[in-house]
Amino acid sequence: MKPATQNILFIMCDQLRADHLSCFGHPHLHTPHLDALAKRGVIFDRAYVNSPVCGPSRMSYYTGRYVHAHGASWNFVPLKAGEMTIGDHLRPLGVRSVLVGKTHMRADAAGMSRLGIDPESQVGVRIAQCGFDPYERDDGIHPYSGHDPDPAYNDYLRSQGYAGDNPWEQWANSTEDEDGTLRSGWFLKYSNRAARIDDEHSETPYITRRAMDFMREAGDQPWCMHLSYIKPHWPYIVPEPYASLYGPEHALPVKRSDAEREDAHPVYAAMMEHRVSQTFSKDGVRETVMPGYMGLIKQIDDQLGLLFAFMQERGLMDNTLIVFTSDHGDYLGDHWMGEKDLFHEPVIRCPLIVVDPDPRADATRGTRCDALVEAVDIAPTFLDVYGGAPVPHVMDGRSLRPWLFGQTPADWREAVVCEYDFAFQDSRIRLGSKPIDSWMRMIFDGRWKYVLFENYRPMLFDLQRDPDEFHDLGASEQAEHVAARARLHEALFCWARRPRQRVTVSDQAIESVEVQARIAEGGILIGYWDEADLIDARQQFKPRFASHNPLVASTLDRLTAPEGASDAA
Amino acid sequence: MKPATQNILFIMCDQLRADHLSCFGHPHLHTPHLDALAKRGVIFDRAYVNSPVCGPSRMSYYTGRYVHAHGASWNFVPLKAGEMTIGDHLRPLGVRSVLVGKTHMRADAAGMSRLGIDPESQVGVRIAQCGFDPYERDDGIHPYSGHDPDPAYNDYLRSQGYAGDNPWEQWANSTEDEDGTLRSGWFLKYSNRAARIDDEHSETPYITRRAMDFMREAGDQPWCMHLSYIKPHWPYIVPEPYASLYGPEHALPVKRSDAEREDAHPVYAAMMEHRVSQTFSKDGVRETVMPGYMGLIKQIDDQLGLLFAFMQERGLMDNTLIVFTSDHGDYLGDHWMGEKDLFHEPVIRCPLIVVDPDPRADATRGTRCDALVEAVDIAPTFLDVYGGAPVPHVMDGRSLRPWLFGQTPADWREAVVCEYDFAFQDSRIRLGSKPIDSWMRMIFDGRWKYVLFENYRPMLFDLQRDPDEFHDLGASEQAEHVAARARLHEALFCWARRPRQRVTVSDQAIESVEVQARIAEGGILIGYWDEADLIDARQQFKPRFASHNPLVASTLDRLTAPEGASDAA
Repeated sequence: MKPATQNILFIMCDQLRADHLSCFGHPHLHTPHLDALAKRGVIFDRAYVNSPVCGPSRMSYYTGRYVHAHGASWNFVPLKAGEMTIGDHLRPLGVRSVLVGKTHMRADAAGMSRLGIDPESQVGVRIAQCGFDPYERDDGIHPYSGHDPDPAYNDYLRSQGYAGDNPWEQWANSTEDEDGTLRSGWFLKYSNRAARIDDEHSETPYITRRAMDFMREAGDQPWCMHLSYIKPHWPYIVPEPYASLYGPEHALPVKRSDAEREDAHPVYAAMMEHRVSQTFSKDGVRETVMPGYMGLIKQIDDQLGLLFAFMQERGLMDNTLIVFTSDHGDYLGDHWMGEKDLFHEPVIRCPLIVVDPDPRADATRGTRCDALVEAVDIAPTFLDVYGGAPVPHVMDGRSLRPWLFGQTPADWREAVVCEYDFAFQDSRIRLGSKPIDSWMRMIFDGRWKYVLFENYRPMLFDLQRDPDEFHDLGASEQAEHVAARARLHEALFCWARRPRQRVTVSDQAIESVEVQARIAEGGILIGYWDEADLIDARQQFKPRFASHNPLVASTLDRLTAPEGASDAA
Repeated sequence: MKPATQNILFIMCDQLRADHLSCFGHPHLHTPHLDALAKRGVIFDRAYVNSPVCGPSRMSYYTGRYVHAHGASWNFVPLKAGEMTIGDHLRPLGVRSVLVGKTHMRADAAGMSRLGIDPESQVGVRIAQCGFDPYERDDGIHPYSGHDPDPAYNDYLRSQGYAGDNPWEQWANSTEDEDGTLRSGWFLKYSNRAARIDDEHSETPYITRRAMDFMREAGDQPWCMHLSYIKPHWPYIVPEPYASLYGPEHALPVKRSDAEREDAHPVYAAMMEHRVSQTFSKDGVRETVMPGYMGLIKQIDDQLGLLFAFMQERGLMDNTLIVFTSDHGDYLGDHWMGEKDLFHEPVIRCPLIVVDPDPRADATRGTRCDALVEAVDIAPTFLDVYGGAPVPHVMDGRSLRPWLFGQTPADWREAVVCEYDFAFQDSRIRLGSKPIDSWMRMIFDGRWKYVLFENYRPMLFDLQRDPDEFHDLGASEQAEHVAARARLHEALFCWARRPRQRVTVSDQAIESVEVQARIAEGGILIGYWDEADLIDARQQFKPRFASHNPLVASTLDRLTAPEGASDAA
């Protein structure tokens, strides 16, 4: 019998905040298709990314490993050749893993060269594409992102009459003034204007159709498709009708407090000095951006509606596990910040909806789960779907399937961890910090959020009393705060020292054999005084290892001959 | 001008304790050739291995990385394909890295298969040989070690008339009773008898001659040769004349105290239950073994005398940096232990002598250095010799050359770290510990030695008051001990969280460019409100990135045209 779950559709948005879906409580931004999806599955209300920026967060999704383990700590840092990804884990199980959209992966060219791997070979392409086979890769931000300078999407636009060197920029991500002047969507000032492109030719519908193309062509082999939207990531500009749907009055109220700027933690203060933070802290900027940001999300929801209908027609909704999530959020002016360089909730909490067609998941359809889950849990979930044995020696995360089946897994984590390497940021230069000292780590137990820096005091927030995270208790002398810091500091140490690089031997392999006995059975005799010791011990030996090596049994026979060996020369 | 140091001879013994050389204070075991070597260079008196067992310790030597970073945590754990080794670092500098002897490396066959690397290819062979080109690999312990079941040394023995399936075992590592009965050197009982082989055909002279063969053939290309002796590792048996040189009266007094067995730390107690610990704790065993162990060391010293004379004749002593060290020590009954499964000084302190022919090292010849140095410092030293830029994003260690040149490097480490994954040991099974919880870590600051376990109390020794490490202060409530534990616990956290996997981008690369400015110069405009912002910022831009992409400059020109773009369609 075929398992109920044949395929996986792994949908990721870029820079989508959890609180910008109606099923996550947004009062004005209605996302009925995602809400309907959630009714078929489980909403994870406390899902966190493992890094607040694209590259490292995605590598944690794709490897199931913390940034501390996989090492690709910022957007320009290649994931090292050899790190195992979803594709590597699923391929031996007969599953085709494909990419439609963005990964933000930079290929480890030096590693491939050292290992003699041709970047054009199948292995080389997979190393460059996070282990996926690229059905269509499109990282957006053309042509500047260092990826394909003229991707298929640009060709498509030209074929539709959007001419030019870079129609992505000039059409899909630009607008026109009242007088017809071309204005770039790069400038936040124009975010509330319509992109000069028909909705159907804009990025989100295009990529959605490419996903459908793959589904049409896929055949019977089980597949795991990473449908990875570029939006609502900047440029924050969307075509009509989405450009006109929302005004500033539909945006969530900005979350910032003057208290935050007084005596701010030095690293936070330096982040507030970033251009994007300064800009978003000016009056009117957020108000201008939000209509574009919200319109982009609404467009995604509509496109997912079309996709789910398409899948429904083909019976794919009945055999496809669907994950909907995001690589991180966006400050959008909250906390006097733009972008995503710290650990406040708007940035590190991600939307997560999981729908599993397996009948065992009927128990939880339409429910919400408040377990602390992380991006690293996605890859182990996929492995679990196809019956792969867990690989805790490789993946830091754990399968979410028990939660979907209404079970409460034993020893579930008590805290989530998020890491950020700000070596690449202006704030590092401003602070005069060395790259090696420019990592910060956050641990959050559902109430207390502790942020550890090198050479600076920590930050601490009590989200129970201060859900908006306005009051940094990192220097508070109150006993409760001192105790919370000490406890989470130690928890972070436990996390940091956990072995994550013994990836070539599984815990299962270690536990399945008495290693020392096997060594002795193989003829390596450590701590044996004389023949009698061996004769004794040999009663317990199993001929496992020896059976592969004809020399061993005969040697052991000789060594345990009561009168000693007889074949002395 | 050629640099003074052309080649590297990296000599490693296996299981050689630091205190078993006369230049390290042994009163009876005279090692004049090593003593003479030390007079030409520097003795590091506080050198430590990074793991007390062969495999992980060696991988730290070969990668310059802690076990926590490279992951090959025990003898059967393959170093993952992609980890960079000495050979990988030196090859681009034109240096040939070759192996003569043992590495204890297990090839990462699964990793190679995943990466499409043919194990028979040059790259595949290097992955299997720790990055060295194997001139002659010989791991000893034939044929049971899972390596070559019938290595060249066995062929050699047969050619010399030592016949049989496994002449390594039956001749080089066996003895004969008074009545001519063959007795295996595996049994400790026979360690004080002579191996049934002529000295010149035994392992150490054979491998020494193979090193000479390489030197004869090497030509002008600079080389780094890892001459890696199997001895004085068990089987503890040596041919004449070495078998008769030492009696039990020449051995160092055993270091053990009844106090150690009373209320021993649970993991230590379990280690004392290992067969080898039980055996070595019996009366007479150590006394029988020491003559063999000491004879093997004396034989190595004599062979090194021949090798150094050979090198002297060829001028190689004048242009070759020589490192002499060991992969770990041996309890030999000290602390009621055999083998090497914990962190007492006899096991983790290694002999380290470094001779650098560079004239800058004249300042320190014949001196001793008490800096805290580690196995991970060796690979960075080699890189330094050939002028390679330091790679602190890859290697945890630091070059020892400043010490050799009489300098005191800034910010030298204040403590050494040693790790042990005892998942593969009987003690794990006895304790019912999970593999993931079976790591222990030691940190030693020159006085206090702190050992951290998972789920057990720590251990603590004060080597100033208790140099023999008889008194475990891990549970002491004395303020000084509590404070020492807290301080080293925190130091271990700093060590554990240090980023070690961002190996694809160097600190130097990060510091050499203002990343954010470069992103903007490339046309990715984050946080720009309008054209005026960009016109302003563009004054600061450098055309570096843009110059590689003709689209960028023209786009920036268009975006900063005062009247907006003119090419609106």
